[in-house]
Amino acid sequence: MNIILLSGGSGKRLWPLSNDIRSKQFIKLFKDESGQYESMVQRVYRQIMSVDADSKVTIATSKSQASAIKNQLGEKASICVEPCRRDTFPAILLAAAYLHDELGVGEDESVAVCPVDPYVEKEYYEIVKQMGELALQSDANLTLMGIEPTCPSDKYGYIIPESGDEVSRVKEFKEKPDVETAKKYLGQNALWNGGVFAFRLGYLLDKAHSLVDFTDYRDLFSKYESLEKISFDYAVVEKEPSIQVVRYGGDWRDVGTWNMMTEVMAEATKGNVTLDDTCVNTQVVNELDIPIICMGCKDMIVAASGDGILVSDKERSGAMKPYVERVNLDPMYAEKSWGSYAVMDAQKGSMTVKVSMHAGDSMSYHSHDIRSEVWTVIEGEGVAIVDGMEQHLSVGDVITIAAGCKHMLKAITNMSIIEVQLGKEICASDKHKHAMD
Amino acid sequence: MNIILLSGGSGKRLWPLSNDIRSKQFIKLFKDESGQYESMVQRVYRQIMSVDADSKVTIATSKSQASAIKNQLGEKASICVEPCRRDTFPAILLAAAYLHDELGVGEDESVAVCPVDPYVEKEYYEIVKQMGELALQSDANLTLMGIEPTCPSDKYGYIIPESGDEVSRVKEFKEKPDVETAKKYLGQNALWNGGVFAFRLGYLLDKAHSLVDFTDYRDLFSKYESLEKISFDYAVVEKEPSIQVVRYGGDWRDVGTWNMMTEVMAEATKGNVTLDDTCVNTQVVNELDIPIICMGCKDMIVAASGDGILVSDKERSGAMKPYVERVNLDPMYAEKSWGSYAVMDAQKGSMTVKVSMHAGDSMSYHSHDIRSEVWTVIEGEGVAIVDGMEQHLSVGDVITIAAGCKHMLKAITNMSIIEVQLGKEICASDKHKHAMD
Repeated sequence: MNIILLSGGSGKRLWPLSNDIRSKQFIKLFKDESGQYESMVQRVYRQIMSVDADSKVTIATSKSQASAIKNQLGEKASICVEPCRRDTFPAILLAAAYLHDELGVGEDESVAVCPVDPYVEKEYYEIVKQMGELALQSDANLTLMGIEPTCPSDKYGYIIPESGDEVSRVKEFKEKPDVETAKKYLGQNALWNGGVFAFRLGYLLDKAHSLVDFTDYRDLFSKYESLEKISFDYAVVEKEPSIQVVRYGGDWRDVGTWNMMTEVMAEATKGNVTLDDTCVNTQVVNELDIPIICMGCKDMIVAASGDGILVSDKERSGAMKPYVERVNLDPMYAEKSWGSYAVMDAQKGSMTVKVSMHAGDSMSYHSHDIRSEVWTVIEGEGVAIVDGMEQHLSVGDVITIAAGCKHMLKAITNMSIIEVQLGKEICASDKHKHAMD
Repeated sequence: MNIILLSGGSGKRLWPLSNDIRSKQFIKLFKDESGQYESMVQRVYRQIMSVDADSKVTIATSKSQASAIKNQLGEKASICVEPCRRDTFPAILLAAAYLHDELGVGEDESVAVCPVDPYVEKEYYEIVKQMGELALQSDANLTLMGIEPTCPSDKYGYIIPESGDEVSRVKEFKEKPDVETAKKYLGQNALWNGGVFAFRLGYLLDKAHSLVDFTDYRDLFSKYESLEKISFDYAVVEKEPSIQVVRYGGDWRDVGTWNMMTEVMAEATKGNVTLDDTCVNTQVVNELDIPIICMGCKDMIVAASGDGILVSDKERSGAMKPYVERVNLDPMYAEKSWGSYAVMDAQKGSMTVKVSMHAGDSMSYHSHDIRSEVWTVIEGEGVAIVDGMEQHLSVGDVITIAAGCKHMLKAITNMSIIEVQLGKEICASDKHKHAMD
């Protein structure tokens, strides 16, 4: 099956593990069948593959997430990078054009679109597969997944089906109602709109050409910024008369806040954590090297990363966003396409970071106008190119890179370096990429 | 007045701010009159000086604390370093011999001995001064401070005075009683034994020579390890028939646990800390560079340092010790006579530390057998001597120090360097001091 996974924006509600450049779907708090920690993106990919090992997965995402996805999935999934953020209709459209024009998916093939966030059972992806098949077999233009409600929630849009059958035509859509209205819907076999759609690729491309003036993927990419910000629901679903819905009754959770995340975390603690006997209903995630000791904590979440430390009552954690926005700190840890870095020290005129690269990782050839850098290799070996000169590096080697000097590093083995950045101003924007000489 | 301050052992009960090498009396959680943070040692010294600006203060302590005391008090106080730990009688004896033989204090002068830990008002040191005067004027051999009890506590020894007068002869001493017995004592004008003694220096030296075979300070120092571990109370006080006690009724608190420390901390938070509106009776100390956000915390203490993070219910925090002992981590931050260091990263084969020195600070000339070091100067300037060669260092300079190579650094201005240590084994014991060539 062809699947477009929408890997959405950055979130601060799982701070300090999520930040402006690390979205919640990359935090490794789940475990796979062999007991290895995995992120939501990895979990979803694994679940899809266990349902259909031939699935072609394309992740529609922003530039800032592409590196993290490559680090976590390797080359297994295609990535369709949006030049800028433009809501779900443009994103799905761009990904559909990408499938057609870059990956050669035919107009008669089906495509399913899924958000990457919900925590679900494998059965969910069995339904997704079924939806892809139904999209080709039935005469409905769109096939939606309806989540069987567990309560009259006011947080979701509702789908009213014509019947309570497993597959049914859709009678109408309802915006997020108040709880009283939601109760009425529940009496009509109503379902939550889970944001999962399947369609024949040709249907969507026709629809797209009728709404947007473009020739192919590259053309669409080039004019992406001019597209209207509009959701797929508004632009397509609510105007389409021929829609069917498939029911899903399994576990389906939004793990976008700590309170909800703690319910599905693989373990009560991760990292160097000690809880005393009097801790109750408390989860602790520690990404730092130093130990955390919790004593007498009740109904709490404690999370620590290079970006900061959260100590919160679970219920209260949902109200975290404004406080995190006030903190307004540069991310101290980031996964990049060439590896990851962690800021270890920052003071006026200098910043010290630890750079970690996997064997084969390679930086772009670049230079800085303002800052110089001193690299000390503490693990592994690699090859640096500095102003066109190739240099083999191994543990204990030190190189100094003056401001203006072009440089890159390719890791031969897994590699760690301590990089001391020095200059009047240390900022991420002080970077120019260069073609290799 | 002559004062011996007993600066006691390392404590884990204020972890992670106190550790094996940083005792609780060096944590800066109080404020002086100008609003600057100060430690207990600094507070006590300031209080003593405000009562008598001519006080001669000698701090009896272990080798491991000498550096921290020098960093916090400079050259203002004398330091009498015990070669090893031997309880309070040997420690007071060594300090008394030091005063007599090294500082020239006469046998007819009085000396007061005070523990450095209790949190007290200035009036306490006015009583100490008065005790020194009484030690010379009255015919009692020992003058003690009695703390007016605020409750029938079972945590202290009791002094039963002959009268309720401000100064009274002592009738008897009582070991820590149970609460019921303590209630009876309170009806007899009983006082807590606060561990403060004053005496004529000659009295103590005579007593010492009758108990220990030594000639002078240096002789005593050389045989210190062979001395019996015994407290001053057992060895001297309880055998002395001629004792008087002076009452102190002001604030007197043991701030040896977080629960008690939070009652006297200058501010509810220190460092980069955000508390939301729903936090109640919660104190947070953050020595890390990253922010801490607390939400919905009730009756809690949160403390973070390079050694670790504590999140604890206040009452429960008193039971912390066994958990901290299990963590058993090398201290990540230390004040040394030549400055301070903070471990930023440790992995197999390397450790990266930030070294901070004040202008004028100077390392000993030393070498390492196993590890090499790479220094990058990120702030200030200084002079390094490497295998006898003098080298001026300023921001951006990098020097590599091979294993076996002798080296030292003297800071001209305040100075920071990033030091990457590399070697099969990285340990504190891999260090040899050398005379300068």
